[in-house]
Amino acid sequence: MRAPDIIMKKRDGRVLSAEEIRYMIQGMLLGDVPDYQISAFCMAVFFQGMTPEETTALTLAMADSGRRVDLSAIRGVKVDKHSTGGVGDTTTLVLAPMVAAAGVPVAKMSGRGLGHTGGTLDKLESIPGFRVSLSEREFVEQVNRIGLAVVGQTEDVAPADKRLYALRDVTATVESIPLIASSIISKKLATGADAIVLDVKVGSGAFMHELDSARELARAMVAIGRMAGRRMSALITDMNQPLGQAVGNSLEVIEAIHILSGRGEGRLLELCFELGARMVVLGEACDDVNRARATLRRLVESGSALAKLKEMVEAQGGDVSRIDDPDRIEIAPLSARIRAPKDGYVCRADALTLGRAAAAMGAGRQRKTDSVDLGCGLRVLVSVGDRVEAGQPVAELFAGTQSRLDEGMIQATQAFAYSDAPCQAPPLIYEAIEA
Amino acid sequence: MRAPDIIMKKRDGRVLSAEEIRYMIQGMLLGDVPDYQISAFCMAVFFQGMTPEETTALTLAMADSGRRVDLSAIRGVKVDKHSTGGVGDTTTLVLAPMVAAAGVPVAKMSGRGLGHTGGTLDKLESIPGFRVSLSEREFVEQVNRIGLAVVGQTEDVAPADKRLYALRDVTATVESIPLIASSIISKKLATGADAIVLDVKVGSGAFMHELDSARELARAMVAIGRMAGRRMSALITDMNQPLGQAVGNSLEVIEAIHILSGRGEGRLLELCFELGARMVVLGEACDDVNRARATLRRLVESGSALAKLKEMVEAQGGDVSRIDDPDRIEIAPLSARIRAPKDGYVCRADALTLGRAAAAMGAGRQRKTDSVDLGCGLRVLVSVGDRVEAGQPVAELFAGTQSRLDEGMIQATQAFAYSDAPCQAPPLIYEAIEA
Repeated sequence: MRAPDIIMKKRDGRVLSAEEIRYMIQGMLLGDVPDYQISAFCMAVFFQGMTPEETTALTLAMADSGRRVDLSAIRGVKVDKHSTGGVGDTTTLVLAPMVAAAGVPVAKMSGRGLGHTGGTLDKLESIPGFRVSLSEREFVEQVNRIGLAVVGQTEDVAPADKRLYALRDVTATVESIPLIASSIISKKLATGADAIVLDVKVGSGAFMHELDSARELARAMVAIGRMAGRRMSALITDMNQPLGQAVGNSLEVIEAIHILSGRGEGRLLELCFELGARMVVLGEACDDVNRARATLRRLVESGSALAKLKEMVEAQGGDVSRIDDPDRIEIAPLSARIRAPKDGYVCRADALTLGRAAAAMGAGRQRKTDSVDLGCGLRVLVSVGDRVEAGQPVAELFAGTQSRLDEGMIQATQAFAYSDAPCQAPPLIYEAIEA
Repeated sequence: MRAPDIIMKKRDGRVLSAEEIRYMIQGMLLGDVPDYQISAFCMAVFFQGMTPEETTALTLAMADSGRRVDLSAIRGVKVDKHSTGGVGDTTTLVLAPMVAAAGVPVAKMSGRGLGHTGGTLDKLESIPGFRVSLSEREFVEQVNRIGLAVVGQTEDVAPADKRLYALRDVTATVESIPLIASSIISKKLATGADAIVLDVKVGSGAFMHELDSARELARAMVAIGRMAGRRMSALITDMNQPLGQAVGNSLEVIEAIHILSGRGEGRLLELCFELGARMVVLGEACDDVNRARATLRRLVESGSALAKLKEMVEAQGGDVSRIDDPDRIEIAPLSARIRAPKDGYVCRADALTLGRAAAAMGAGRQRKTDSVDLGCGLRVLVSVGDRVEAGQPVAELFAGTQSRLDEGMIQATQAFAYSDAPCQAPPLIYEAIEA
């Protein structure tokens, strides 16, 4: 087998064998196939695409490139959730305790925020003492004991994916559905999930801006997962406005606690019910999505979901008193409000602009090595379609310094637009790709 | 300027500026743009193509990447000829003395053979003592004195082209018209030609197998040359059967001498008149192709063209007695003949198969560092369309060892096919792209 022949085969639109794909990926890691051949290969994939079989072979080759996390000691069907990333997307913090309370083990490995999107690990670190690094043994033991653990992804998972992504990032080959899909699913397979619920975001604040490409990505990921023997389900959801009110790490944790306390309604909770119900069904704790949704609602209302969050925080060394009294979670000292300039309707509360504003105030990082200011960010007080009066606050911003607050105000103000006529709120869920 | 942005721009089908193209090429040479970005860029060009303006910018960036040969001290319009490479293609040896005899200075830099195609430098070295390396001063002085010199291309011409070609060769990005065209023309510009006549071959033994792609390449090269201020002319010619009778270095030199002595007719001489007439017109020694062709024919018949070849051989240290008595040029000791198996018509004398057979006997090299056996090769005694009788020799092979001769016989026999019904000879020239 020769790399130039494999590149040419893909370039000319022919279908590669699993062996050929594995040759490229293993060769990349071993140094037998140099980066200049891998990048030409990725560009050929960009133009010619890959069949579901090819994409699955690529996914498995990357999943097998490092250590596979062994969750077999955890009893039950391990169900994971993956979001393609958004703004104000606090689902994991709300969802994971809910689903665990419903009896489905949640052994979740999460990431950190990058660019305008947040990451669950940063959010959890808003709770003093919370440890995101557990040994694999501690992790398994905790899930068996309380049904829930959320930790950082270990470094040695899917090294080929890391290597390939770094190369794609500098060769204009990121935007390829098979390459994106295989990157996501390879990590999920390597971290031991039996079933995966996907939240594919579409809109200004998402990686995918068009419904067509979001659908294509969702279908590709579902197909790969199934070919690899996993149970899969996907929702395509809106990310034109932030999902929850809060954008920023501490603020999002506070919102999650409010919601799990039964003191919040809205899109974030709604989506958590939808995603969570599918996790419960894939996890075989219920055989019907509607009944699973009702169960989850009951678990929130009864306080069981919040209790599960507390159990996890306690197990991972976090200060539980902050869950009881979320006002004690530290937020940035300076604040300011954006107000509606006139009577009318909110017709835009742009997710990307608000995510960037929060990041500019210190909530996000541009590079992986940047540090974040956990306490800063913003709360969006309105949704698209809401009626507002002149002077009514539409957002509240929090920052550590006046200059950052000013910068945040300038940026976040641009996110809003108003109209005299009523305007339609976008749907929360565009479509579902069911198991 | 950032390389990933430039790659993405080309990937998305947008037109690059000359500055962006120069940034990539200079960055490649300086090490600022790593090979993995260049190869992804080449693959994007493969799929999206380049406008004539972009291709010209790429050509100039490569021509300017090293030393430019200065031929300004040579009086008159310096006309070069370039062939895309074929089998039995002895044109330079016949053409260059002819055109020089017509009063147009020929300062030619040639290459060596690779794969199944031959190279002029190897052929000239069949003449004992012939020096293909002259200093630039010797080169210029010789052309001014006798109107003709043929030397090897210096190493420091268009280094970016060498680098880019080496990378394309291992990343499946060779077969791109703008990349092929810019590679060829960049070297011609760097070696100082004022006008260029192109011989673009099409057929089994050529780089281009289809008339459409040959035409596209010819037009791209003519467009680049003109944009760079050169006078250009191109012929698209047949390479389904060898051009001349001889395939192999010494054998081709002998054939060239025979033809220049007025003792040969056929496609090779015909094409030399056509290409040569265009060189004479571009070189301003005549203003009409038909009259130029008649002039060249006269120069052959009168012996002036052969005398010019002798002058060059003498000037470059070669043994002139071999020109007077070409039978003294050494050919391989063992020979064998392929004979027609039945009465009929020759319907195939495949250039690629015959080129490979000659290479297998030692006439060609697979790698640039291989040595060649100058004396071996073959003579094709028939042309497609010829009537043959059972047992009539159709080819004569020459090799240094019996095993090579046997191997050559096995391969070369496959090149021929016969039919009972008469079959049409392919045209010699498919079309002309005139100045």
